Amino acid sequence: MSSNLSSFIFCFCLVFLLQSACASKARHLKWELGYLDWAPDCVQSFVIGINGQYPGPTVRAKAGDTLVVEVTNKLPTEGVVIHWHGIRQLGTPWADGTAAISQCAINPEETFVYRFVVDKAGTFFYHAHYGMQRSAGLYGSLIVNVADGQKEPFDYDGELSLLLSDWWHQNIYQQMLGLSSIPFKWIGEPQSLLIQGRGQFNCSLARYSQTTWTYPWPETMCAFNNTQCTPHVLRVQPNKTYRLRIASVTSLASLNFAIGGHKMVLVEADGNYLEPTTVDKIDIYSGESYSVLIRTDQSPSTNYWVSINVRGRKPSTPPGLAILNYYPNPHTKLPAIPPPPSPAWNDTSYSISFARKILGKSSLNPRPPPVAQRRIILLNTQNKMNGYTKWSINNVSLSLPVTPYLGSIKFGLSNAFDSVVPPENFPADYDIMLPPQNPNTTTSTGIFRFELNATVDVILQNANTLTSNNSELHPWHLHGHDFWVLGYGDGKFDEKRDVKGFNLRNPPLRNTVTLFPYGWTALRFVADNPGVWPFHCHIEPHLHMGMGVIFAEGEELVGKIPLSALGCGLTRNLLIHG
Amino acid sequence: MSSNLSSFIFCFCLVFLLQSACASKARHLKWELGYLDWAPDCVQSFVIGINGQYPGPTVRAKAGDTLVVEVTNKLPTEGVVIHWHGIRQLGTPWADGTAAISQCAINPEETFVYRFVVDKAGTFFYHAHYGMQRSAGLYGSLIVNVADGQKEPFDYDGELSLLLSDWWHQNIYQQMLGLSSIPFKWIGEPQSLLIQGRGQFNCSLARYSQTTWTYPWPETMCAFNNTQCTPHVLRVQPNKTYRLRIASVTSLASLNFAIGGHKMVLVEADGNYLEPTTVDKIDIYSGESYSVLIRTDQSPSTNYWVSINVRGRKPSTPPGLAILNYYPNPHTKLPAIPPPPSPAWNDTSYSISFARKILGKSSLNPRPPPVAQRRIILLNTQNKMNGYTKWSINNVSLSLPVTPYLGSIKFGLSNAFDSVVPPENFPADYDIMLPPQNPNTTTSTGIFRFELNATVDVILQNANTLTSNNSELHPWHLHGHDFWVLGYGDGKFDEKRDVKGFNLRNPPLRNTVTLFPYGWTALRFVADNPGVWPFHCHIEPHLHMGMGVIFAEGEELVGKIPLSALGCGLTRNLLIHG
Repeated sequence: MSSNLSSFIFCFCLVFLLQSACASKARHLKWELGYLDWAPDCVQSFVIGINGQYPGPTVRAKAGDTLVVEVTNKLPTEGVVIHWHGIRQLGTPWADGTAAISQCAINPEETFVYRFVVDKAGTFFYHAHYGMQRSAGLYGSLIVNVADGQKEPFDYDGELSLLLSDWWHQNIYQQMLGLSSIPFKWIGEPQSLLIQGRGQFNCSLARYSQTTWTYPWPETMCAFNNTQCTPHVLRVQPNKTYRLRIASVTSLASLNFAIGGHKMVLVEADGNYLEPTTVDKIDIYSGESYSVLIRTDQSPSTNYWVSINVRGRKPSTPPGLAILNYYPNPHTKLPAIPPPPSPAWNDTSYSISFARKILGKSSLNPRPPPVAQRRIILLNTQNKMNGYTKWSINNVSLSLPVTPYLGSIKFGLSNAFDSVVPPENFPADYDIMLPPQNPNTTTSTGIFRFELNATVDVILQNANTLTSNNSELHPWHLHGHDFWVLGYGDGKFDEKRDVKGFNLRNPPLRNTVTLFPYGWTALRFVADNPGVWPFHCHIEPHLHMGMGVIFAEGEELVGKIPLSALGCGLTRNLLIHG
Repeated sequence: MSSNLSSFIFCFCLVFLLQSACASKARHLKWELGYLDWAPDCVQSFVIGINGQYPGPTVRAKAGDTLVVEVTNKLPTEGVVIHWHGIRQLGTPWADGTAAISQCAINPEETFVYRFVVDKAGTFFYHAHYGMQRSAGLYGSLIVNVADGQKEPFDYDGELSLLLSDWWHQNIYQQMLGLSSIPFKWIGEPQSLLIQGRGQFNCSLARYSQTTWTYPWPETMCAFNNTQCTPHVLRVQPNKTYRLRIASVTSLASLNFAIGGHKMVLVEADGNYLEPTTVDKIDIYSGESYSVLIRTDQSPSTNYWVSINVRGRKPSTPPGLAILNYYPNPHTKLPAIPPPPSPAWNDTSYSISFARKILGKSSLNPRPPPVAQRRIILLNTQNKMNGYTKWSINNVSLSLPVTPYLGSIKFGLSNAFDSVVPPENFPADYDIMLPPQNPNTTTSTGIFRFELNATVDVILQNANTLTSNNSELHPWHLHGHDFWVLGYGDGKFDEKRDVKGFNLRNPPLRNTVTLFPYGWTALRFVADNPGVWPFHCHIEPHLHMGMGVIFAEGEELVGKIPLSALGCGLTRNLLIHG
């Protein structure tokens, strides 16, 4: 390299770095979390909201910014934490917002300051991570745009954001009680699907079928005068390109998302770029996010339905609807064509085929290391423990310790959790096509520890539940890292056969990936983020029933944990005045 | 005194003390607090229970025993504390079980050990003291019998215990939300009254009137096959004397208690002996307890109704019923006479006349000091604060600090609460017969401090609420002490006129006393218990709306507070690793 050229590059980089440094800034937010009277699906209920809003406010930042969120808990008796889903928390593991893992829950009337860098652009969100408070509505969007001077690798004229969720009329306390009861009481299917926190329970609009679809707008049967549940409106101009940021924080429902008459080009998933792919519909699982580009090239004489439907579980929930409102139509104008139908709920091959279409934009994403130093295989089973129904990983159902892991590891409190490492595989003769022969499971607070910077493969292996001929979908989410999705397969993972089929060329980089019924999913990540990180099924009741594991790496490099994260369990007993 | 006599007395005392010391013991209890699916009034709901029970287990001890209760919080996200109502906590102020006052709430999955001496015999109870968790059913009876070798000053053949409460179908989270909302949403009257945790919603039995009372037992209209809500049964033998221990933990309702066909002799209130008084009915307010003696001298050919009715608020709640079951009748046999009618709900003069009948057994109770060193006058008003509805004392609505008082005072954290002492009187020209001229109130965490061993008079002064021609009942409860009830009066307290009418001869010693509409109530206590002690309206929503004050005395004598009480607020920030 000539001296001139390298000087030029150096100067260019310097200018660029300075520019970035000047542009990135601290964004201060003050949030008060409290109960709100709310009717997300037009049925009066209550939610946990933020500053009087439900869903919580959309946070917007630029890559490199520091977010400083002062969270004050105004719930009368409940603790609370907020997890910043998809943000890796590089150097700030105590800001990951996971109760019993990264911090003690924030007590009522207390304030915890989440201070962390949003290091890269993408479509993220935030939500509660304690008990089943996410299901109570404590969530919102977190959108990180590219840093000043940077450019997205695709063009668009405008941007719209949609947060998808599901809703039950039973409160979360009774839901949690039922899950921890003998006999077990399942929460059932959601009463409503919500787009941007809005749904319509028992409204004929949401029970359309192409044949019974009639004008005029059946106002009398739907509560369109309730401002909390009128369908969300996406206002667009004709003949433009829009980026839709879609994220799912559902408690349970896997969704299929479509917009009547419009195709979508997938360009981003979980904050990482995708090889652009054109689709009619999107399967989106809890914990996932996508950006799609749509072209408003349809007839501007009408509006269009945006709809979500349940996938993977026999649906008893009507579709969730929003309105793509073409200028200059009034947003109340009924779309001329019905909401697009979704694939059959149990068409797993459709789902897998969709999942396989999601490929990383290899020119923009880091490539996976070619080999892993360690490979752990996690068998997902439904089990019984002393009469309680549990989900287990290699026959261990996760229980969380009283003292959050991060503090107990930092301060060497070795009796704060089980020192036995959970098994990293399952018996070779386990028949994944049958209910467990011996359904009894055990529980543990034990963790997997990785060498810092080790490349780790995780194989998620699905199996039959306690019910014959039943295996369920599980979207698994990893904190603190992105991972490459190396492949999906049917049946039992076979190391000899399946490893060579891994996609190392253009795997998508994600933080959430789905394990399909009776199948396996392979992922690879680099354990390069000092801290303690849960990896768990993002279905809220499944996690509540023990469906997760805990990873840790580089614990000796964890910096100073804020005192306000340490007021519980054994870390509390380090008080000066003891 | 002759040397012989004094030697005798000394020996007698020594033997007695040794005997007491041997007899008193530590009673260990292990409790797990959690949600329970329950139908207290036959309507499916959920409660906070203990070890799977609702109401919580009845605790029995002897005077002088040490209770050691290991409370483990199995609620998924809520903190919890347990207050031992009527136990003075001499030397153990950290065991008083008041969140934000005596301790940090117990975090989910954590255990707090309440260790304290029940120093005297009486009818007590325990309940939650955080948010409105008492209204969620977290309560139970605490019965302290006389020490071995001691004798009650009355005889009885058997003992029965009744805990009275009220019940709403709306959960406490929504109740608390409504109380803290603009516009204010009142919780309304209870759906049901419960005896020993059992009521019957929408059951014709509980809607009796003397004329419509018909046989047979209207099973079809009442849920008598639900074991959670069948009426509580008091099994008695004919021609015996029973001690009934009656305690009220209602959230709101003031009650009138009666037993068809039976008179009652009042002998104990709040753990102190009364001059025996025979009555037909008892007014009992939230926070109060009574022992009555009944003679089962009625016809043994039938059973009898035990009933409770709402007093002081226009009742929209049917009576709560239990069955006095005379041997050998089956307990399912319908009583021959209807439940006794109660006085008109708004017959305040009846209530005051009943209150005045409650007199201390002066031969057994300590007498009040003849004069007080300090007298504070507490005006009870309903107010507005930034649009919120509040209750205020001398125009200050109590807010609780983030750091519990006991810890912040012990460790000299002077900025943990307002240093300004709240006013100890109100303007002389305040018209108690009208809504407040200026309804705006302020809030404070400030406290009243007393010199150790000072005799203090408190005058509770009632007034009109925000609504014209309305003044409400308030049962006030003092922690850490008993007090003498020196008198009740109508209208505004006049020091010159009213002090000389104080009953210093045989005032009852209590921990809870009622303030009647538009009236005043005078009480006296000795500030002899080092610690921090709330004095508050025992109506759960009223306390939640700020109706209380905080007393403190002898703080320098407070011993070592358990670390587990200090994990919140500023005391947490005393961590070693800070």
